[in-house]
Amino acid sequence: MTLDEVVAGIRPADAEAKRAAIRRQRRLTKPPGSLGRLEEIAIQLAGIFETEQPTARNTTVIVAAADHGVVAQGVTGYPQAVTAQMVLNFLAGGAAVSVMARARGANLIIVDAGVATPLPAHPDLRVVSAGRGTRDLTHGPAMTREQAEACISAGVGIARDAAEDGAHVIATGDMGIGNTTSASAITAALTGTPARLTTGRGTGRSDLELQHKIACVERALDVNRPDAEDGVDVLRTVGGFEIGVLAGVVLGGALARRAVVLDGFVSGAAGLIAHSLCPLVLDYVIAGHQSAEPGHQVALKHLGLQPLLDLDMRLGEGTGALLATGLVEVAAACLSDMATFEEAGVSDREAEGSAEVSA
Amino acid sequence: MTLDEVVAGIRPADAEAKRAAIRRQRRLTKPPGSLGRLEEIAIQLAGIFETEQPTARNTTVIVAAADHGVVAQGVTGYPQAVTAQMVLNFLAGGAAVSVMARARGANLIIVDAGVATPLPAHPDLRVVSAGRGTRDLTHGPAMTREQAEACISAGVGIARDAAEDGAHVIATGDMGIGNTTSASAITAALTGTPARLTTGRGTGRSDLELQHKIACVERALDVNRPDAEDGVDVLRTVGGFEIGVLAGVVLGGALARRAVVLDGFVSGAAGLIAHSLCPLVLDYVIAGHQSAEPGHQVALKHLGLQPLLDLDMRLGEGTGALLATGLVEVAAACLSDMATFEEAGVSDREAEGSAEVSA
Repeated sequence: MTLDEVVAGIRPADAEAKRAAIRRQRRLTKPPGSLGRLEEIAIQLAGIFETEQPTARNTTVIVAAADHGVVAQGVTGYPQAVTAQMVLNFLAGGAAVSVMARARGANLIIVDAGVATPLPAHPDLRVVSAGRGTRDLTHGPAMTREQAEACISAGVGIARDAAEDGAHVIATGDMGIGNTTSASAITAALTGTPARLTTGRGTGRSDLELQHKIACVERALDVNRPDAEDGVDVLRTVGGFEIGVLAGVVLGGALARRAVVLDGFVSGAAGLIAHSLCPLVLDYVIAGHQSAEPGHQVALKHLGLQPLLDLDMRLGEGTGALLATGLVEVAAACLSDMATFEEAGVSDREAEGSAEVSA
Repeated sequence: MTLDEVVAGIRPADAEAKRAAIRRQRRLTKPPGSLGRLEEIAIQLAGIFETEQPTARNTTVIVAAADHGVVAQGVTGYPQAVTAQMVLNFLAGGAAVSVMARARGANLIIVDAGVATPLPAHPDLRVVSAGRGTRDLTHGPAMTREQAEACISAGVGIARDAAEDGAHVIATGDMGIGNTTSASAITAALTGTPARLTTGRGTGRSDLELQHKIACVERALDVNRPDAEDGVDVLRTVGGFEIGVLAGVVLGGALARRAVVLDGFVSGAAGLIAHSLCPLVLDYVIAGHQSAEPGHQVALKHLGLQPLLDLDMRLGEGTGALLATGLVEVAAACLSDMATFEEAGVSDREAEGSAEVSA
């Protein structure tokens, strides 16, 4: 499928199923609205799955990893080798996302989207590498248009495979030393926000280092002039391979009519790219959490998304998204499996017997 | 055990285990602090369970139900019969908390703490009823001191049994038509806050009905003059049977060294009573969520607790607490099961190879 075909294939959520879910919510044995945001999520899920009784039990988290040429500018405190080391840690089960996936009973798919260090073959590693890391975006485009399109296309395929393998919910995750610099540039470009408001400390930079990082983002935007009307161009000029794959995962999830739970800042940047290519993806997207990175708020505001969790997390890897999938599962279960007033023989508000309480 | 013996038996969390957990966190394969509030919770769990590798996998939610004489004042829109009807709904598996407990794989214990309507025997129903509903607290004390102490004592026993049966985490929940009026009065009494700031709309009152509810809470405080230095007296005068049981659950959970996750406003009032009897319980208590009821913020502020979730929920039943237990489980798992930098062969921040990124 070409990218144009993918975009053309994405349909809106089912408005009738959403209306049916709203009616069903009113009949469930609880005061109206008392499950708060879980009710909103459940109605969204009804629209996605085209049924007033949706299921969101099976979760797959897709963690895309890649390296970034911009690390040559000293924008991060970790050596580039950590990207590959962490991929091995994901595969060995020792990373935060690995531990969370086990606790949640979620499938974990690791994607080599363009890690600089060669990785050994592993049954749980999908290799769609577009190259051994991007070029330094402060000097010119991070990648070619062909590479950008290949990343997105690979992400679409991985999400569709996950859906075919039974995932109701797809959570996004990222790993890439230097990738918050790219996410800052993408967020600035696609939201029209100054770099100083979209750039944060990443994994923990000092004040001086933050100023340097902001200057790098400004230079990247100045040198490349990404076309804010074209998400592929933004990815090409200031993106990352893993961000392209994740943008494809968002598009592919929407195409396959699955709920896509976004992780934090880097996933948010991927969400911005997917949204710029196809605004309809928002029908399928749930913001898992609010990252501590300031640019994430800018991205979520632009997308009109309100995060489910706010736990001061800033790890990436899909950890915030995966935590949120527990809430998404429960939201669907409440709508689908709770008894109605009639079924349970429970009196509705101000219905029978109200005389006995107003005496 | 007498209440004095319970209070005397509660010990502080293990400071050495907490220090060991803090040291362990620093060695785990993630940037320091990047798991945010999950790291705080994990360190608290280390102190509770006296180990740097705690487990919080098994959850039991204890839902205490009772009726309230104050419903005669018309403070709620639902008939009193709904308390018993909802207990039957819990037992039949159709309520929100039933659905969530299944989704989470949690044990669900329903407690008849004093429901007005006779309930049929059921293997999952624990009957510790202190009477068929409290007396109307706007006319005088809601219960006797003996009833208040019996409720707390029953709750202590239920929590200790749950701990013995393998629960690492105990979540609290409530059901009782009219019980937000009691919770408002308790919160006002124990925090020294005017009733208008601790009283909300409960399951959905109009402006006029809210004013009437506030007046009822003010009258209850005026008629009874609860002794703010004595949690048992506050329970006796303006409490509820289920709130007494839940205060006992908090004390019993702390005594048994288990994590106690509080639900919303009514559980918060129970937490205030437990705290007034034994401030050390705070070492064991986690605020599951921020209820939409305004008095809940007052209670949490008084206890110095920051809720894990804020989803605009106001259902009770333990639903907010149960959702939060998923986060608590993952917090423990990350601390205990993540690989360290040494184990995973991952380079630590600014360690080896830093030259290659500052070029």
